[in-house]
Amino acid sequence: MGDYDVIVIGGGPGGYLAAERLGHAGKKVLLAEKERLGGTCVNVGCIPTKSLLHSAKLYDHARHGEQFGVTATNVTADWSAMQAWKTNVVDTLVKGITGAERRAGVEVVAEHATLLGPGAVRLASGAEHRAEHVIVATGSVPAMPPIPGTADNDRVVDSTGLLAIPEIPSRLAVIGGGVIGVEFASLFATLGSEVTVIEMLDEIVPFADPEIAAALRTAIAGVTFRLGAQVTSVDGGTVQYATADGPAKVDADVVLMAVGRRPLVDGWGAVESGLDVSPRGVRVDDQMRTNLPNVWAIGDVTGRSLLAHAAYRMADIAAATILDPVGAPKHGQTMRWDTVPWAVYSAPEAAGVGLTEPEAIRRGHRVVTATVRHVLSGRFVAENGLKAPGSTKVVADADTGRLLGIHLIGPSSAETIWGAAAALESEFTVEDLRQVVFPHPTISEVIREAVWALAL
Amino acid sequence: MGDYDVIVIGGGPGGYLAAERLGHAGKKVLLAEKERLGGTCVNVGCIPTKSLLHSAKLYDHARHGEQFGVTATNVTADWSAMQAWKTNVVDTLVKGITGAERRAGVEVVAEHATLLGPGAVRLASGAEHRAEHVIVATGSVPAMPPIPGTADNDRVVDSTGLLAIPEIPSRLAVIGGGVIGVEFASLFATLGSEVTVIEMLDEIVPFADPEIAAALRTAIAGVTFRLGAQVTSVDGGTVQYATADGPAKVDADVVLMAVGRRPLVDGWGAVESGLDVSPRGVRVDDQMRTNLPNVWAIGDVTGRSLLAHAAYRMADIAAATILDPVGAPKHGQTMRWDTVPWAVYSAPEAAGVGLTEPEAIRRGHRVVTATVRHVLSGRFVAENGLKAPGSTKVVADADTGRLLGIHLIGPSSAETIWGAAAALESEFTVEDLRQVVFPHPTISEVIREAVWALAL
Repeated sequence: MGDYDVIVIGGGPGGYLAAERLGHAGKKVLLAEKERLGGTCVNVGCIPTKSLLHSAKLYDHARHGEQFGVTATNVTADWSAMQAWKTNVVDTLVKGITGAERRAGVEVVAEHATLLGPGAVRLASGAEHRAEHVIVATGSVPAMPPIPGTADNDRVVDSTGLLAIPEIPSRLAVIGGGVIGVEFASLFATLGSEVTVIEMLDEIVPFADPEIAAALRTAIAGVTFRLGAQVTSVDGGTVQYATADGPAKVDADVVLMAVGRRPLVDGWGAVESGLDVSPRGVRVDDQMRTNLPNVWAIGDVTGRSLLAHAAYRMADIAAATILDPVGAPKHGQTMRWDTVPWAVYSAPEAAGVGLTEPEAIRRGHRVVTATVRHVLSGRFVAENGLKAPGSTKVVADADTGRLLGIHLIGPSSAETIWGAAAALESEFTVEDLRQVVFPHPTISEVIREAVWALAL
Repeated sequence: MGDYDVIVIGGGPGGYLAAERLGHAGKKVLLAEKERLGGTCVNVGCIPTKSLLHSAKLYDHARHGEQFGVTATNVTADWSAMQAWKTNVVDTLVKGITGAERRAGVEVVAEHATLLGPGAVRLASGAEHRAEHVIVATGSVPAMPPIPGTADNDRVVDSTGLLAIPEIPSRLAVIGGGVIGVEFASLFATLGSEVTVIEMLDEIVPFADPEIAAALRTAIAGVTFRLGAQVTSVDGGTVQYATADGPAKVDADVVLMAVGRRPLVDGWGAVESGLDVSPRGVRVDDQMRTNLPNVWAIGDVTGRSLLAHAAYRMADIAAATILDPVGAPKHGQTMRWDTVPWAVYSAPEAAGVGLTEPEAIRRGHRVVTATVRHVLSGRFVAENGLKAPGSTKVVADADTGRLLGIHLIGPSSAETIWGAAAALESEFTVEDLRQVVFPHPTISEVIREAVWALAL
């Protein structure tokens, strides 16, 4: 035993939740975070973007209410007021997390921490602490590939920089069509920017079912997507890229680098302490153990999933296993990577969980699918009209009838998808889901229509 | 065998879905509906109200976007344009149902139908038809208690009448604080009416958990609620009512009678054919059989649940049992009344499924509950602020850990609740639900917070 039962390195969603759970369970916990609590997600990621996207949605709705009998003039989106609200929200949430740690009895120290080895951590101030367990939750940072002309180019920003720009750009180029690129593209297109997304792959949001990804790409208004396009250089605001048809370029006032994020595996003693680590992350088992005894890793730094809610689940599993280490992993102590949902908060939203159709086929399933348009939902029609984008795709195993994946595009997708995660976690068959009573009228009911539409 | 395999009496959600399922399964089906397909729900119930409520929400958002950086002037809600959109939506959905019946090979006849006995139906035109099975789905009608001064009073309307009023009333009195009363109260209060709801019981929406019902009552802006108030008479637009403190009155331009709906058990041969029927509905078992052989009843007419989605589920069960009648009811062929969710589409929304806390106690459970405010959700704060109403209540059995009920108030409640219905249908324990990964940031995540907050 050392000074603490558990030291947690990193105060993002994984780290702060693990500390909180262990603190409430009576453990003496030190949480080291050199910046503000909340990590990337709360401070410069999911939360500020959702705040701005909500403002943009209100702006869009205020401008386009005529069909629904609502009109307005002089509809204005004030970017600095949007940012002020965003900052207010972030500050509120950081305070909330700080309070939650205090209530859990967690000691929080605003210092960089270095892992020295099993049970040993050194703070930036020089203090060394011992603990029975160490949880590494150092997160990730934006990947910045060495594209010529991007370094020291003040028109090129990462997501953190774009959140802080002083005004809405007339022309925005986005390098990368993942979640971050797509959300910012949708945000600024709604606010009036001319937006171009340049994506190396043949489709945006590559983790999504390709049918849903294509529907999302078509549905996001006001954004030009260049697929299969490899950026070769940036000169001022001019982005040069190569396509199958030869070179092309786009001129922009601001260029967002959004090619992804990489696990933060350097600068905190990973290699020096003997952790099994690569640029792809710290290797963990399904209870979040690393190769070092009583050293655990959770969240983005594992490279297994760079989603805040995956970090939460990893935190729960690590905490549960630390608290109850005897024997084989129990119910609730095994990470199931396939039941982690994703969501994109563009306009429209999209979300999914489980296997995409191609992934299900790759894994050897004989697959049956159904895609149903949301215009089957009376609520969807009432709130969006017949031309609005929206659909639900269900993927199932044709032989066993087991549900494999549910994928949505349309309003409230992110709020609706958790039920699909619950159904997959519980290994529902199609027949099980057909029996669930969905409230009417909702958009979620289309999930029911889709499982009934499956040829099973 | 007769002219048809199945005759369905009534083309609302229960009737049209049963006909569709049986038609797709190859049965020769006659669907008799004297008015338009879609029943109360589509034509004068859930769908038109949701359309108008959405317009009202847009109006409210356009007026109150300043906090989020969005401003507008001259925000106007044009009631006749709202009604025109509503009519457009209803017409679209009726067409959709008509097409769905055609694709299922169902013969639809626009006539009143009378049940003569097992397998025998007479149409208004005089034609008599035989069928192996008859499904009764005659629905319900607004209950109009004989309150003095309500008959022949042109200020007194039912919900159908209120949908059609030519202008937004300055003052609206609503008799009855159930779903219909509360939704209309919220709608017109948002549009600027001075609204008073007069409810006989001590709380509105009596099917809801009382804590959620009270939170909803407090949260609906601009409505005065009079509880424990019994209406004694209406004189012009003046509603007189008795309270524990003595008589009182409210003056209104329009008075909505919304004291509930009653199963439509008269006018179609229920008594004459020998059905086991009372004013509370046609008695059915959990496979929707009546006392007469091969005569089934589904939806509002059973009086068991007056919700469109309950009718859908009853339709599925009746159809499945007709198609596969051998032996004991199978998986999927038993109505589970406790897993039917409800939703109220006021501003804010509310929804729930399973047992309320008092009902769980009444049934002998030792109950553990947790109520968590939605301000724990970053998305909720970003989109609504810290002062907005929103909370999630979870009810579980303290001894078995089994989930008994989940109850929500706040944005997107109706879209979120289906996962809770799936969890209850699948008999989740609290531990099962704790393992489900909810996407971050969502409001639905508060369900996760609530199950973790349970003292279990």
